[in-house]
Amino acid sequence: MKLNILFGGASFEHEISIVSAITLKGKLTGFDLGFIFCDQDHTFYLIDPSKMKARTFSKGEHKKMPKLQLSKGGFVQKTLFSSIKHSAKILNLIHGADGEDGTMAALLEFFSLKYIGPRMDASVFSYDKRYTKYLCDAKKIKTLQYEVLTSNEHKNLTIPYPVIIKPARLGSSIGVSIVKEESELDYALDVAFEFDSAVIAEPFISGVKEYNLAGFMAKDKIYFSIIEEPQKNEFLDFEKKYMDFSRSEQVLKATITDKLVAKLKTNFEKVYKGLFEGSLIRCDFFVIDNEVYLNEINPIPGSMANYLFEDFASSIEMLASSLPHAKRPQVSYEYIHSISKAKGK
Amino acid sequence: MKLNILFGGASFEHEISIVSAITLKGKLTGFDLGFIFCDQDHTFYLIDPSKMKARTFSKGEHKKMPKLQLSKGGFVQKTLFSSIKHSAKILNLIHGADGEDGTMAALLEFFSLKYIGPRMDASVFSYDKRYTKYLCDAKKIKTLQYEVLTSNEHKNLTIPYPVIIKPARLGSSIGVSIVKEESELDYALDVAFEFDSAVIAEPFISGVKEYNLAGFMAKDKIYFSIIEEPQKNEFLDFEKKYMDFSRSEQVLKATITDKLVAKLKTNFEKVYKGLFEGSLIRCDFFVIDNEVYLNEINPIPGSMANYLFEDFASSIEMLASSLPHAKRPQVSYEYIHSISKAKGK
Repeated sequence: MKLNILFGGASFEHEISIVSAITLKGKLTGFDLGFIFCDQDHTFYLIDPSKMKARTFSKGEHKKMPKLQLSKGGFVQKTLFSSIKHSAKILNLIHGADGEDGTMAALLEFFSLKYIGPRMDASVFSYDKRYTKYLCDAKKIKTLQYEVLTSNEHKNLTIPYPVIIKPARLGSSIGVSIVKEESELDYALDVAFEFDSAVIAEPFISGVKEYNLAGFMAKDKIYFSIIEEPQKNEFLDFEKKYMDFSRSEQVLKATITDKLVAKLKTNFEKVYKGLFEGSLIRCDFFVIDNEVYLNEINPIPGSMANYLFEDFASSIEMLASSLPHAKRPQVSYEYIHSISKAKGK
Repeated sequence: MKLNILFGGASFEHEISIVSAITLKGKLTGFDLGFIFCDQDHTFYLIDPSKMKARTFSKGEHKKMPKLQLSKGGFVQKTLFSSIKHSAKILNLIHGADGEDGTMAALLEFFSLKYIGPRMDASVFSYDKRYTKYLCDAKKIKTLQYEVLTSNEHKNLTIPYPVIIKPARLGSSIGVSIVKEESELDYALDVAFEFDSAVIAEPFISGVKEYNLAGFMAKDKIYFSIIEEPQKNEFLDFEKKYMDFSRSEQVLKATITDKLVAKLKTNFEKVYKGLFEGSLIRCDFFVIDNEVYLNEINPIPGSMANYLFEDFASSIEMLASSLPHAKRPQVSYEYIHSISKAKGK
């Protein structure tokens, strides 16, 4: 199967997207893979697969490779006398802004390319942590209590300490702090507001049980990954997460009861159905007093959470064969015709 | 001021977008206006202002006009030996799909064009009536009770009759029915599901008081239009609405108490702030027992609701001079550098 991996993007997660793409190259060896890089200035490049190394990008060597232009039905590569259209299905692997905020989804839809990845509305609900809360409230999925801050002026939080402070729209732990007491709050807010104009505060529960579950829908059925209990060091900082994006070894199943497995899957389904079709997502849950709380939706998890799937390549193949596609209305100009007629012209 | 009006789109509201653009041409005579048409197949054309007539499009005459390509910083028109870049600010006047669903916002952001219109997240929350409910619940704005249907199998509604049935993602009354009793429900659902895979049911309140209020933010202040009590015939059907999009005569203020005016404005602000910056929106409210309920957010109202503004041209000029713009992070490759270093290569 031909698949073009789209990665990079103008985002704080640009570099981890490169790492993710390199990891997937190793995991999807049975595919006929192409690599399309979106530079931070929004120029697309076709990357020679043999040059898929981190240093190609940090040294700017990609700039010598063919430029691509997004056009109807594909990425077009102009050659001296003609042009080549790269129209295979896309795997959207741009983490953070551009990829997970809905931008790339909109571009791919507009230019009629089929793609693996969250659609626009799914992206908006998962990219901004405030909107994830709205979604969960509407779908009756439990989440931790929260407070939204839109300026770093000192204020009294309604949530008891310790709290965790996160920029509303960034993943990968960027700008996140744990605040143990009020005296540390101002600094944490300054850090978070460096990255976003909206910040979210939640209770920080030391030692809380965490479980990650990924999955995707193909042919009207949800396929789940194994459930992992991720290793914890307070929380994963950016460099840890960075290494995390290059994970490719399958992990062990969490040892939890069937009942809890079922609960986690039910919550995953509530999140996924009717919104995330076309994408492989990872939901990160907390379990407190046997109740499941959604912590975060990763609509494009690092290296697509390959390490959670027993047969990752087959999963991607199934998903790629079952992508939703938007219906477009046919414009008949019947109203303009009828009005012109009524006017007698 | 130079302003390019972007209209058309692959949507059920394609034709009313044309009518809207023709109306704005008459209302914004002081501007240096350009007209960029998005055909239903997603080709862009530069329309000769003297040809801005409905029949230009229904007869396909626009196809003889110059094609444009969306590129970094503008719409590019290729000429025989060179190219012209149209990089003026855009007024997004594509109603419905493409324009109001966030697609055009994403494209314009990605290619760094400044534009009047809702941003991607604002679009998602106003385009889909289900998500408008989520937003209102989170922001403590009252709305009518509702039920979401995702298949037209007969079912018992929890809402008492009469009900109004609407496709979740269409404006301009397309596919909308009033259902007076259960025997009429199946037909109404069949109609609505013609247009969307999700349908929303709400109580239909005959003779309910309705008020429309438009506004926009410029330089951190919200500027309100007058409040209109729209004329009612049960509800506006598509042909009525169609005519509505060509309105250009200023309407009379609704005769309501200052207290109600203040309540409507407070609700408008709750909707607008932190989400709709950059756009001129119209909120349609119901008033029941002195309580204000949000019915609908129109993020790109027909002919931009010019008829509600005392000085529409100045309003557009203020808004155009105060557009938000996205910050882009600079990628430094510091993580890749530090990892390469740690690995000793």
